[in-house]
Amino acid sequence: MAVGLQAGQGPDEASGDGFHPDCPGHVLFRHATSRWGIVLMTALRPGPQRFHLLRDRAVGISEKVLSQNLRELVRDGLVTREVEPTTPPRVTYALTSLGSQFTARLGAVLEWVGDHVPDVLDARRRYDEVG
Amino acid sequence: MAVGLQAGQGPDEASGDGFHPDCPGHVLFRHATSRWGIVLMTALRPGPQRFHLLRDRAVGISEKVLSQNLRELVRDGLVTREVEPTTPPRVTYALTSLGSQFTARLGAVLEWVGDHVPDVLDARRRYDEVG
Repeated sequence: MAVGLQAGQGPDEASGDGFHPDCPGHVLFRHATSRWGIVLMTALRPGPQRFHLLRDRAVGISEKVLSQNLRELVRDGLVTREVEPTTPPRVTYALTSLGSQFTARLGAVLEWVGDHVPDVLDARRRYDEVG
Repeated sequence: MAVGLQAGQGPDEASGDGFHPDCPGHVLFRHATSRWGIVLMTALRPGPQRFHLLRDRAVGISEKVLSQNLRELVRDGLVTREVEPTTPPRVTYALTSLGSQFTARLGAVLEWVGDHVPDVLDARRRYDEVG
């Protein structure tokens, strides 16, 4: 099981902390699984989307924060940004092959969570009853 | 694709924000994918573990924060806590069936990230070169 996410790290070091905050894999995971990262990656799963559609999907986000989140995902190689020289410029975002692979795996986690919310609520109720 | 994580929410509402901070699925996801959540869930994957082993695996964690993290995972129904009435008491944690299912899916994401760190570093280098 490859959970040593620090590039070039030996298995002994990795076993101490499988997810060091400084490692690039950790940063990637945080960008793509942040609240907005999840919304954006999920919105791009069916296909390329315009900036304004992403803004509408990420309810409550400011344009500045949306741009920051998209820039991180582009820099990580998960998302592409294409600008058509129209007036105003038309900006389209799409998942890269890397982004699609990540989003498929993340989607499996999110779908599982979505399907098991009742089990979690039951568990919490039982825990709180016992006190 | 079931990314509407709010229990009982219709598809139209869910499409606005697939991951609302107040929803129980979101809270579960955050507990189990926090820095320490990942370390603990991963440490429990091979089998039940004593409190002290988990403390050793989560390098840099305080016992208080470790206990808080474990309590959240137990409350969510992902982890069990068993106390043997020895002196001192022997406390053992283990993944529940729910926890095992979640951790298997999360593991697929983490393994993919671990395998693709070089691709992400390449992407960042290219992005930063273009400026």
